[in-house]
Amino acid sequence: MSVNRQILLRARPEGRVEPEDFEHIEQPVPEPGPGDALIRTTWLSLDPTNRLWMREEPTYFPPVELGAVMRGIGIGQVVKSDNPDLPEGATVAGMVGWQDYCLASEAMAPFTVIPDELPVDARHMLGVLGHTGQTAYFGLTDIGQPQPGETVVISAAAGAVGTVTGQMVKALGARAVGLAGTPEKCKMVVDELGFDACICYRDEDWREQLAAACPDGIDVDWESVGGEVLDHIMGNMNLGGRIVICGLISQYNATEDHGVKNFDEVIMKRLRIGGFVVLDHMADRGEEAVGALAGWMAEGKIKPMETITEGLETAPTALNRLYDGDNVGKLLIKVADPPLA
Amino acid sequence: MSVNRQILLRARPEGRVEPEDFEHIEQPVPEPGPGDALIRTTWLSLDPTNRLWMREEPTYFPPVELGAVMRGIGIGQVVKSDNPDLPEGATVAGMVGWQDYCLASEAMAPFTVIPDELPVDARHMLGVLGHTGQTAYFGLTDIGQPQPGETVVISAAAGAVGTVTGQMVKALGARAVGLAGTPEKCKMVVDELGFDACICYRDEDWREQLAAACPDGIDVDWESVGGEVLDHIMGNMNLGGRIVICGLISQYNATEDHGVKNFDEVIMKRLRIGGFVVLDHMADRGEEAVGALAGWMAEGKIKPMETITEGLETAPTALNRLYDGDNVGKLLIKVADPPLA
Repeated sequence: MSVNRQILLRARPEGRVEPEDFEHIEQPVPEPGPGDALIRTTWLSLDPTNRLWMREEPTYFPPVELGAVMRGIGIGQVVKSDNPDLPEGATVAGMVGWQDYCLASEAMAPFTVIPDELPVDARHMLGVLGHTGQTAYFGLTDIGQPQPGETVVISAAAGAVGTVTGQMVKALGARAVGLAGTPEKCKMVVDELGFDACICYRDEDWREQLAAACPDGIDVDWESVGGEVLDHIMGNMNLGGRIVICGLISQYNATEDHGVKNFDEVIMKRLRIGGFVVLDHMADRGEEAVGALAGWMAEGKIKPMETITEGLETAPTALNRLYDGDNVGKLLIKVADPPLA
Repeated sequence: MSVNRQILLRARPEGRVEPEDFEHIEQPVPEPGPGDALIRTTWLSLDPTNRLWMREEPTYFPPVELGAVMRGIGIGQVVKSDNPDLPEGATVAGMVGWQDYCLASEAMAPFTVIPDELPVDARHMLGVLGHTGQTAYFGLTDIGQPQPGETVVISAAAGAVGTVTGQMVKALGARAVGLAGTPEKCKMVVDELGFDACICYRDEDWREQLAAACPDGIDVDWESVGGEVLDHIMGNMNLGGRIVICGLISQYNATEDHGVKNFDEVIMKRLRIGGFVVLDHMADRGEEAVGALAGWMAEGKIKPMETITEGLETAPTALNRLYDGDNVGKLLIKVADPPLA
């Protein structure tokens, strides 16, 4: 391959991401300078945070500038290197962007070399063992702190983070009750991942179903959705409950701020609410998280769930699947087949 | 006195409390049975929570039933007793209700005897040393945790809890920036209580004034108001900030739920939000709190601020002063002049 396909952000989407918000261009493959390394993208991770970075408002990172390559986390292979920390042939994880090739020096954050002896495919460093699984790990460990026998409600249960969170909740001895968008997804997380129950939030009586699935109330809410789901759960927490704000995906495409209703329950129920960004913890405590998650994976307590599409060019349309709810587990794009020459 | 004046809740107020929501009656003074004690009310405390208890929805207590004596915290003197724990002549604090006399056995919670050797007037057991001051103590100690040099914004700064909170913040070495409803109140908390600054939230440019008073951002929000004030502060917290939900007074009279806007800042800024009810902690840790608060009072670091009205019959109208914002510090009603015969 001698060209570098790149997908640039051209316009800030309003609501759904549209094809015309992006431009697909072809550039020469860049040449690494002294001390630099050239990385070829093999896998791209699609996450709700991609959509967030497209907004004009700064988030935990500055917005992606218009005309710049769209920011994205992925896996790549070092194909040319003058950097001893990133040797040729190494598999690496980091901010590759929506493009075939990137220079390590131009990425927003340093790359991590994935050890060759990793007992599972490197792409799981984007899923269960990567930022996805570590999100579950740090959110539950630091904020949710489910105790054995407690009930944890997991919104977006069939999503990338939700599938890991629910399985980790079970591994910790608590009850996992999911919320998902289709009966098929609900069945999947119960039958294949061992959730105690899962409610389809599109059902008219989802509130009653949720109450029936939580006879002892809700001790921890793993919140990825926001909006009316959070409002309802806020009104139904047990005394001393914890709400982990992992995401508010229902609001990212929204043009008007719904606000959080029933907020006086924070006092009435003596709640603790916490937000976090997984990247804060990955450098310092990533090893701890990967160790725990890999252990559960090896014991079969955490099974990876994935939806895979093929081809870099699918990135903009695939991203909408996170909002349309037609993916299950981790949403990945296979960009190139390693090992590369 | 041979009659027991009582104020009954007749209707659940919508918005402001109106005189017709109450009935003033006169009953015979009750006779304590075996093991019981008769308490004459000397002081009544008026708190936002009184308004909350009038609503139909249960809070941290069941609602006051229609036709029942209005619930209220106060100070009283034991005037007749067959209970050795509550000897005649003792000064006690507890749930006296809006009435001249109550039986200890009929109160919602046990009474606390105030030691004769208390170096300040017993009414401070409703203020700095009571649930008011202890609210500041537990909220700051357990949730806000201001560090020396950090900036704490205190909404309702001139209120009962706010005046103590700001002074405790200063005693802990942090900066106290208040929000209050009039220039006079702002001047009072700065000049008399040592706040670093206080902004009148009715000023059109209060947001700019607040930004100028917090050049290093906001580390802790002591939230008693909710609504637009909370929305704005939520959008201006420092990374890792803490929000103590002490009250949401702007919402207690509201007929529509404003909701909390800018809630995605919980993630972006990695916030921790906590609600609490002071009564949870007073039994176990009240001694710790009174010890610390009395120490600061003795050192002159916490000065009591009070607004006092006279006469039990003023209770319903006086309560609105909390919402109209024309009280300063602790709002008390003097019901009878101790010591009583």
